[in-house]
Order: sequence, then C-alpha cells, then structure tokens
Amino acid sequence: MSRADATKARILQAATDEFATYGIAGARVDRIAKAAAANKNLIYVYFCNKEQLFDAVLDANVTHGLDSVPFTPDDLPEYAGQIFDYCQQHPEVIRLATWHRMERGDQDPAGMSPAREAKLAALAAAQKNSGAGSDFSPTALLTFVLSLALTWTPSNVANMPASPTESAADRRRAIVDAVRHLL
Amino acid sequence: MSRADATKARILQAATDEFATYGIAGARVDRIAKAAAANKNLIYVYFCNKEQLFDAVLDANVTHGLDSVPFTPDDLPEYAGQIFDYCQQHPEVIRLATWHRMERGDQDPAGMSPAREAKLAALAAAQKNSGAGSDFSPTALLTFVLSLALTWTPSNVANMPASPTESAADRRRAIVDAVRHLL
Repeated sequence: MSRADATKARILQAATDEFATYGIAGARVDRIAKAAAANKNLIYVYFCNKEQLFDAVLDANVTHGLDSVPFTPDDLPEYAGQIFDYCQQHPEVIRLATWHRMERGDQDPAGMSPAREAKLAALAAAQKNSGAGSDFSPTALLTFVLSLALTWTPSNVANMPASPTESAADRRRAIVDAVRHLL
Repeated sequence: MSRADATKARILQAATDEFATYGIAGARVDRIAKAAAANKNLIYVYFCNKEQLFDAVLDANVTHGLDSVPFTPDDLPEYAGQIFDYCQQHPEVIRLATWHRMERGDQDPAGMSPAREAKLAALAAAQKNSGAGSDFSPTALLTFVLSLALTWTPSNVANMPASPTESAADRRRAIVDAVRHLL
C-alpha cells in the first residue's frame, strides 16, 4: 500500500467512527483528522468535503455491508439470525444507514439495488415453490424479516431496554422463531 | 392564552418541525425563531438552550405520543394497526424519537416508563389467559409487535422503497396479518 493509500484508509476508518457516532451534521472534520493522524487539508484533497466523505464511508460500509450476508430464501429464519449476527458485529452499519435516511431523507442508501431486486425474485420463486410465507407479497415478507432481524438495533424506536435476564442468544432465538411464525 | 403562552406555543411548534427535519445537531435556533415569528432571545429566555428546547419538544411529542394509542393486549394485531395509523398521522413522532436515540444514545426516551411496565404486565396476563403468543416473553412479543408496526416508518433501515402497487391500506393489512402470525 502506498503512503497515500494508507492515509486514505486511516481517514476512512476515522470518518466511519465519527459519522457512526455523530451523523453528518454532528461530525467534525477536525476530529476525523486528529483521529486519523492526518492533515485536515488532505481530507479535502482526497474527499472534497464532509458530504462526499460521508458518501465514501457509506459506500464502503452500508452498500456492501448487509448484502454480504448470504440470502437464503428457503431458510428465512436463519437469514434473520445471520442479519442479527452481522449487526451485532457491525453496529456502525445500521447507525450509518439510519443517519443517511434521517439526514438525507432517502428511502434507502442503495435505492432499489440490483442486489435487492435479485433477493425479491429469489424469494418470489421460493414462495411459489414451497408455499411458505405466501400470505405476504415478496416485498412485505422480506421487509418484515428485516424488521424483525433489526428489532434490537440501537436506532430502532421499537427497541426496548433489555430485561436483565435476556442475552443476545435469547434475542437471536426469539427473532428466528418470530420469522418462523410468519411462514 | 396569554401572549407569552401563545409565543411559547408557536416556538414549540416551529421547534418540532425543525428538530423532526434536522435533528439536534442540524437544527438552527435562527430558523426556529424565524418560523415562529419570535425573537431569538426569547427562545433562550423560555427554554435556556437548544438541548433543553429539544427536551421540551420530545416531552410534548414522544413521551405522550405512542402511549396515546390504547393498548389492547387481547387484540395485538389491531394494536399494531393503530400504531401504524398513528405514525401515518404523526410522522414527526418517530423521527424525533429516532434523533433522540441516535444523538443522545439513550435506549428509550421514556426509559422503562410506568406506561411500558403496565403494558408488559397486561400482556403477560393476556398471554397466560389465552395462550396466544406464549412462544415469546412479554418483552420480546411487545417489541416484535412494535417492530412490525413501525416497519414502513422512514427511519427504519428495513424499510424498502414502496412497490408502486402497494397502498397504505395494503401495508396496514400486511402488518395486522404479520402480528396475527406471531400469536
């Protein structure tokens, strides 16, 4: 990796932490430069402005993020479990996606992405094949599966304080079970 | 209403719109003063600072907001439908609650409120009585019901772009049906 690439990578990592914590309006380029041990001017050279730096962070994290969880239309309960695991390991991804929705007003960072189109087509075929979940349109079913899987993410308004006896494993089991009930 | 009370009410309304749109970091007291046709200094006199003005807006909208939907533990599908209706009519409430979670990092504006404690107790009794939804703890069940009801709110990362043939009535029906499946 060239020295410039190494600096860019440090800036992106620091920007990911900063945007995930504070959002676009709340993020400070000063803090990002300090955390990346980079010259603030370099950030503007590489990424133009705060908005475009956020785009780069979003692109690196969100667009490829949730889509990296393999979609298994014949086993939606386990897919929900895997999404839960992914969010446990990458809490910043859901925060970045939420800031994007809140501050940019877009429905979805990826829009109706090709990845999502492919998921919906695969799901429609699986529903036709097995009859499972056929009370719902493919869009509604996939959205509910995601909603249930994301139940306990920090940005979800439905998310209640954990009861002290409830572990992450309990939550994962409950999510998998809830999706099973939909089918 | 005294003139001071009328001014306060105008400020609160303008602040509600501003915070719902831009969040705490993004909100501008200048814009609030202009929209409320009030002197900016009066905002500081009445509400001290931007943070406390947000608290006042949150208190007026969120804390009493979702709790104003009557809780019907024996008819959770319809409860979810009513929450959906409420969010359609008051999109600002979910946005304010989301900003609060994202920018303040709290789990819940109301914490484990007395209203929520009462809901969980009533739900536990209903589960015991009818056996419906007894695959889940009261906390998990209530959280899933809310997650499904809030599926299509703008801040929810699970929320996908609407398919052009899908109406609000379709979404409400799908939510009510999904909750029925959990029981």
